[in-house]
Amino acid sequence: MTFDLILVGFGHVAQRFVTLLEEQRARISGAYGFDGRVIAVCTQRHGRVFSEPGLDASALLERRRRGASVGAECLDLSTVDFIRDIARRVPSAPESRLVVVETTTLDIARGQPAIDHVRAALECGAHVVTANKGPAAFAYHALAAAAAVAGRQFLFEGAVMDGIPIFNLARETLPAVEIVAFRGIVNTTTNYMLTAMEEGQPFDAALADMKAAGIAEADASLDVDGWDAAAKTAALASVLLGARITPHEVVREGISASTAARTVAARAAGRRLKLVASAARGERGVGARVGLQELAADDLLAGLEGQQNGIIFQTDLLGELAIVQRGSGLTQTAYALLSDLISIARQGRAHKSAPTTA
Amino acid sequence: MTFDLILVGFGHVAQRFVTLLEEQRARISGAYGFDGRVIAVCTQRHGRVFSEPGLDASALLERRRRGASVGAECLDLSTVDFIRDIARRVPSAPESRLVVVETTTLDIARGQPAIDHVRAALECGAHVVTANKGPAAFAYHALAAAAAVAGRQFLFEGAVMDGIPIFNLARETLPAVEIVAFRGIVNTTTNYMLTAMEEGQPFDAALADMKAAGIAEADASLDVDGWDAAAKTAALASVLLGARITPHEVVREGISASTAARTVAARAAGRRLKLVASAARGERGVGARVGLQELAADDLLAGLEGQQNGIIFQTDLLGELAIVQRGSGLTQTAYALLSDLISIARQGRAHKSAPTTA
Repeated sequence: MTFDLILVGFGHVAQRFVTLLEEQRARISGAYGFDGRVIAVCTQRHGRVFSEPGLDASALLERRRRGASVGAECLDLSTVDFIRDIARRVPSAPESRLVVVETTTLDIARGQPAIDHVRAALECGAHVVTANKGPAAFAYHALAAAAAVAGRQFLFEGAVMDGIPIFNLARETLPAVEIVAFRGIVNTTTNYMLTAMEEGQPFDAALADMKAAGIAEADASLDVDGWDAAAKTAALASVLLGARITPHEVVREGISASTAARTVAARAAGRRLKLVASAARGERGVGARVGLQELAADDLLAGLEGQQNGIIFQTDLLGELAIVQRGSGLTQTAYALLSDLISIARQGRAHKSAPTTA
Repeated sequence: MTFDLILVGFGHVAQRFVTLLEEQRARISGAYGFDGRVIAVCTQRHGRVFSEPGLDASALLERRRRGASVGAECLDLSTVDFIRDIARRVPSAPESRLVVVETTTLDIARGQPAIDHVRAALECGAHVVTANKGPAAFAYHALAAAAAVAGRQFLFEGAVMDGIPIFNLARETLPAVEIVAFRGIVNTTTNYMLTAMEEGQPFDAALADMKAAGIAEADASLDVDGWDAAAKTAALASVLLGARITPHEVVREGISASTAARTVAARAAGRRLKLVASAARGERGVGARVGLQELAADDLLAGLEGQQNGIIFQTDLLGELAIVQRGSGLTQTAYALLSDLISIARQGRAHKSAPTTA
């Protein structure tokens, strides 16, 4: 079985996804029985290209490396219409499956245009995998419903903690368990900066480090003002706790130059200042917040240094469990997309391998 | 769909499994479309009972609470023959599924007779779920092969860290990821004792605490000599790293009264003495060990106090990730069996709900 992939967005994450797919081709084909070919790439400022039999992905990567556009097809169409147009032109053979790989950047105002991309893709009969937090953070319930109606999948493992299983963990490995609350550290830039400021580095220098490492968002406010963490919190609360909130309903606090003194004071008192994302079911629905908290040194979250992320889940049957990411990077984010693609393939195989008698 | 359950072993874990199944009946039926009824109970010293239409589970629990035997049927048969006999007598209707719930205690010499129970059950066409570490620790590859031949499942989530997903995590949420090594704290009794000894409690008193709490094994050597941790290490290494070892090939160290001074010295030096289970792929196969290690204070494992357990997995694509259990108890172990039962039901449903066209 071959997935026909439409890449909407072709930045670092999408490019790494393409090379990762190539590197893992043999393993994936052997273990999960599928292959993937890129049939279209759609960017905001670097052109568009579509080829029904498949594109030469390495040539596209090479073009982007040289700063050239990927192509100049259908530039008159909106992205949504481009997706629709491709869906019409691709024959819907049972062996072929259309998947939109959405990696546009987060828009914290409304989660657009990513939400429109996801909805259009589902309506056209495509599955969607995305590393963009926006769709799950702003419109999880509507998009999940659209996916159910279409009989397609809408997956976004990469929205929180890269490829570390969070949504898959809850969906696949905690059956009959109710998650009632969570608290975690989910933004790498601010966590690194808090550690650096504890050690005496100024705010600006710490932020510059994260920009140089390619980890901070281009718009620094998304990180330091807590928006990225709020988007992740909204996505987690929506999916895991059934909340109906957007990032704007998450009570939010960020970090600033004046936070430095607080980090040093906390450390001197044997504690750690951390930007904690949390949500809990309460009598009046789900409350969610991102805020600075002074944690006891033996708190699991206090020990997450620099680029480590982690979430502690409080559950009804299993007590508390935590999952921790101890390294992050482009490969991990690209892997999240790949793992979503494998989830789609597995679902398809489970159906296909059905015995005629139970 | 109704699972017909044969309980082999009817101690605390099996009894809690029965009440948990009862408590969660509505949720499980709604979400996973199955019910479970106990049709047989087989104990070593408290009798046996079988009823094809199903037993009154609460009456059985009450009998055990009073110290009475569960029944006196087929006492002339071996457990293996009892399982075979039941399998013959239960009509193999498509709506009914036979599952052996194995909860006998760990035998560290050879993993018997649990391995024979598992093998017999699979050969009779029953699925097996077990909280006993023995079968996976001593015979994982052989039993997995037997399950594949029989077209049945052999699941043992409860063998390590109770119901916290470890085997499910690797199988369901880390597709195409290779685990190359792990290190963790997997024995609660020794971890609690090390923390207690750091704080000045003598070895014997700390062990007595764990016995009083019902956490230490009846045979204290299984805990303090590292056998329980070695069995878990062998199971993890066999399943996750493809090792072909038994607990006896795990390089093993335990704790004793003389360990107390080392815990205090480590703590004084700002470090923590922990009993660490680890395994790694090397050029000459998989090496596995359980041993005391002085860990830096900022090591994630150093922060696991008292009854917390945790494992750090080293992977090829995702770097390191860790999963931590922050509370343990009978419910968590019983939940492991329930989650295995749900895994079997899901597998069945995936087959059943197959569309006729892809």
